[in-house]
Amino acid sequence: MKKSSTNVTWQERRLCKEDYRLRNGHRSLVLWFTGLSGSGKSTLAHLVEERLFAKGRYTYLLDGDNVRHGINGDLGFTEADRRENIRRIGEVAKLFVDAGVIVLAAFISPYREDRDRVRALFAPGEFIEIHVDCQLDICEQRDPKGLYRKARAGELPDFTGIDSPYEEPLSPELTVETGELDVEGSVDRVLEYLDRHALTWKDPE
Amino acid sequence: MKKSSTNVTWQERRLCKEDYRLRNGHRSLVLWFTGLSGSGKSTLAHLVEERLFAKGRYTYLLDGDNVRHGINGDLGFTEADRRENIRRIGEVAKLFVDAGVIVLAAFISPYREDRDRVRALFAPGEFIEIHVDCQLDICEQRDPKGLYRKARAGELPDFTGIDSPYEEPLSPELTVETGELDVEGSVDRVLEYLDRHALTWKDPE
Repeated sequence: MKKSSTNVTWQERRLCKEDYRLRNGHRSLVLWFTGLSGSGKSTLAHLVEERLFAKGRYTYLLDGDNVRHGINGDLGFTEADRRENIRRIGEVAKLFVDAGVIVLAAFISPYREDRDRVRALFAPGEFIEIHVDCQLDICEQRDPKGLYRKARAGELPDFTGIDSPYEEPLSPELTVETGELDVEGSVDRVLEYLDRHALTWKDPE
Repeated sequence: MKKSSTNVTWQERRLCKEDYRLRNGHRSLVLWFTGLSGSGKSTLAHLVEERLFAKGRYTYLLDGDNVRHGINGDLGFTEADRRENIRRIGEVAKLFVDAGVIVLAAFISPYREDRDRVRALFAPGEFIEIHVDCQLDICEQRDPKGLYRKARAGELPDFTGIDSPYEEPLSPELTVETGELDVEGSVDRVLEYLDRHALTWKDPE
């Protein structure tokens, strides 16, 4: 492109995370919901998103619905593919955080190492690991998608909690016991945590 | 998660593209800048972003700087990897458009088929292909990163324009001749196009 000789105000400075954050009026970060299938991760994440959105925060939710057939549509269920699945989700979340957005990510993400690798992509305080903690027997009893039944019947090999491990977070930023709390209580736990740490602070309130 | 019996206002409806767009006050779409190395894609994209941002639009820029070592850090330069590179960028752009954001993507993206595959991910009117059209000899003369020199020396095999083809768009939404126009003129071309089609319309103006 020709350089302009008449106008020196064209800056080559690229917009950055701080520009987007300043405009949005709040910090950007990722709320990473991890837990067993049926623990309520996705419901919790989207209700938290709704509340943040209603308060004027800039948010986006990543879950199986928008990544499984999209960016990760080429991946299967081998161990390597599951790890790559989580790696890419982490990288996508990082782009959204860079764009000033509060990202909510709801994935079983059963391996500690994979979650820690995602955490390492972020600056301190940007990755909030939320353990959606619900006993296996309760998850299996709910079985909203009939997956546990299929897994017990041997139709879904390597199903987390049945014949594949779930490695609980050792020091998550927050644990929400969705086997004990009701829906509002669970959502409130997350919002209280965020308020307490001023993580999504916007207006004086 | 236990269901609440006391509060029936909890909705399970997920926030969607229209919610984000309504809040942001403008359409979301992807501006896909394609062209030779040195054609000015990245400069043009980030100056357009700056102008849109200054007008209050919600924007994000994808280019080599934030995807090469991130989401696509596992990819090399084989033909298959280059295609996968563009596929993933398209899918990431789609997530941002879903989040209500105007995405600017600046990549050589030399193959028509790859670009058309990205286009097919979007609803009509959401994918704006911008051909950043500059003659090879001018790009090579500028050679801002010294890549043409390396390619001519045989150090960068399969370099687009030298020993790998660039397939020009057959019917791009817009062509910007950056060999003819100066920087402001190029930026204005893009903004005029967007205004003419009311693509990033926000306030009555």
